[in-house]
Amino acid sequence: MNRPTALSGRQAAADLERLRAAQPLVHCLTNNVVSAFTANVLLALGAAPAMVVAPEEAAPFAAIAGALLVNVGTLTVEQASAMRAAVASARQAGTPWTLDPVAVGVLAWRTAFCHELLVQRPRAIRGNASEIMALAGVAAGGRGVDSLVGSEQALDAAMQLAERCGAVVAVTGATDFITDGHQVLAVDGGDARLQQVTGTGCSLSAMVAAFTACHPDPLQAVASACALMKLAGETAARESRGPGSFAVALLDALAQLDGAALTARWP
Amino acid sequence: MNRPTALSGRQAAADLERLRAAQPLVHCLTNNVVSAFTANVLLALGAAPAMVVAPEEAAPFAAIAGALLVNVGTLTVEQASAMRAAVASARQAGTPWTLDPVAVGVLAWRTAFCHELLVQRPRAIRGNASEIMALAGVAAGGRGVDSLVGSEQALDAAMQLAERCGAVVAVTGATDFITDGHQVLAVDGGDARLQQVTGTGCSLSAMVAAFTACHPDPLQAVASACALMKLAGETAARESRGPGSFAVALLDALAQLDGAALTARWP
Amino acid sequence: MNRPTALSGRQAAADLERLRAAQPLVHCLTNNVVSAFTANVLLALGAAPAMVVAPEEAAPFAAIAGALLVNVGTLTVEQASAMRAAVASARQAGTPWTLDPVAVGVLAWRTAFCHELLVQRPRAIRGNASEIMALAGVAAGGRGVDSLVGSEQALDAAMQLAERCGAVVAVTGATDFITDGHQVLAVDGGDARLQQVTGTGCSLSAMVAAFTACHPDPLQAVASACALMKLAGETAARESRGPGSFAVALLDALAQLDGAALTARWP
Repeated sequence: MNRPTALSGRQAAADLERLRAAQPLVHCLTNNVVSAFTANVLLALGAAPAMVVAPEEAAPFAAIAGALLVNVGTLTVEQASAMRAAVASARQAGTPWTLDPVAVGVLAWRTAFCHELLVQRPRAIRGNASEIMALAGVAAGGRGVDSLVGSEQALDAAMQLAERCGAVVAVTGATDFITDGHQVLAVDGGDARLQQVTGTGCSLSAMVAAFTACHPDPLQAVASACALMKLAGETAARESRGPGSFAVALLDALAQLDGAALTARWP
Repeated sequence: MNRPTALSGRQAAADLERLRAAQPLVHCLTNNVVSAFTANVLLALGAAPAMVVAPEEAAPFAAIAGALLVNVGTLTVEQASAMRAAVASARQAGTPWTLDPVAVGVLAWRTAFCHELLVQRPRAIRGNASEIMALAGVAAGGRGVDSLVGSEQALDAAMQLAERCGAVVAVTGATDFITDGHQVLAVDGGDARLQQVTGTGCSLSAMVAAFTACHPDPLQAVASACALMKLAGETAARESRGPGSFAVALLDALAQLDGAALTARWP
Repeated sequence: MNRPTALSGRQAAADLERLRAAQPLVHCLTNNVVSAFTANVLLALGAAPAMVVAPEEAAPFAAIAGALLVNVGTLTVEQASAMRAAVASARQAGTPWTLDPVAVGVLAWRTAFCHELLVQRPRAIRGNASEIMALAGVAAGGRGVDSLVGSEQALDAAMQLAERCGAVVAVTGATDFITDGHQVLAVDGGDARLQQVTGTGCSLSAMVAAFTACHPDPLQAVASACALMKLAGETAARESRGPGSFAVALLDALAQLDGAALTARWP
């Protein structure tokens, strides 16, 4: 296994600038708990979210979007059929799509569905350690939506999964590891309060999708998304008193952070 | 075309007072991204939101509500059938209903559905320029949920649509134009941050519905709703540092603003 | 009827400590307006929320969760079938489940559904006065999701309902009454702003579910949940300027409040 390389803040700064110039349209098929927060995170970031959910509309919309996010947190039969249609359409149109396999491995039905989708060549996959291990076929087991193991324990699984799917895999936790199966980038930092607000992981997956819309190097693009969320979390923690004010400050930070802040944080 | 008349702040103040006294029950069939924010906006305003979504319940509930909102942002087949039932029931019971045609013109399925609903005589229609032009049958085309043209470019379309449907049409943007097909009211102001928070447009449509519940003059009522949102946006912008704190301050402002503030802003 | 006993803050403090140590996994089948706020309330409290909604997954998940919440606010046919499966599974597995009968009595369909569920022995039921009276079969009638009568007027109905179902019933309002059909605990306080934010009642029901997951005495556990929400509301009211900042401060307060604060408030 290659040793992880630390993220380059300079590169992340360039990626953020490119994203804000492009304002990519991100088609989100996500769970209904986090849809509002996800939209607000994408707007703060400078992207254009759109939640088009019906099977009748998801396919044509995925074809015109800059990126597609598929998050199975509150999967239903109808939503699964919209996701199948959207993913097929995205693949045909060349729209990069990102998978967030929420609680995969805990429940058999969504696990089978995620494995079915993997064949459709996602550009990126973001999950916690339990989820990435479950997707890779390594026993781990989460508890509800939470991981029971640290991100470093899932790094081998992440590399195998990345190589098998031809995708960039991000396994997030105290340190985020981002890999294409060969190289590994590591992003440290963040804040424990990110775990106390629902949807921060799901929104990071939406940011990952947004970054893949307009960047030639998906490994770096996904790492830049992870870096921005970690830095925004650190900034928000300094300006908040609990999880309510943290979520507010996180959106403010995502809108305010710029390339200089990223370069200063990861010199 | 008549020249737009500026809104009367005094009239808006009277409308707000009447709404707060009546506390109208507003039945919202809206998209699942904005449902919580919409409910909080209506509560802050002084109205009573209720999201009753099943086809089995939407029809009886629309008949006892003070107003009905139909927003097609995350339209599904099941929701469309609830909307059809609710709109028919509202029309029979004399409950005024408001249409928010999110992203109409971008996707064929919802476009056909919106045209079908138009026959049922909405009291009000609120959309951005792209949406109003698409509903009126004028080519425009949005990008996802965003308009690509300014509100003033949709004024002719808004007037035609209003006359054809017998509805008040609000085309919102940097300046909001509100028309019944003959008269036009203009409301200027607001703040760019309203675009950085998901659901501010959708929530304005819910406010429009609330104002139509208890006001004899729908043209003025819709303009008053627009004015209140613009003024709340201006107030919130002064008290916030980014889109997160702006959304919080917007709800505070909607609850705090009174007739005196409206009269001072549009003397 | 027994006279209500005031809550013991010392007991509530012990209950909160036990909950934070156990971090119970709370399976929420709730309405889509409040799902994000409910998840954030549970996270702030120290519990682990999970919204698993498909009929295919709800039954297995309810069996492994620490508690189950069923809230009928935006009931659909598909959700009803997930709820039936989850409740049956919870009962078989010994997972305590809580019913929040939103707007029961106002709409015939959900009223029949709630009566059907009552046979499955909920551990707890939380509602406003109109809802509890409607469930008990006493005429009351709400207006949308709001009660038209005070909580004290529903106390007899609550006691009858509790005895009939073998459940703890909480009827909440200016004073909350919690009863098992024999004893009654009363919790006073709170703040009017709790009515101005959507989902505070629904989130309290989720807290009730969380407290029943790890406490031997359900009567006291439900009262402790009610006390914590009232105290958090009082704390948030002092630190906010309107309903937007109140909701933020409420989440902060739920995370910050500890046993000492509960004991000081109800000595």
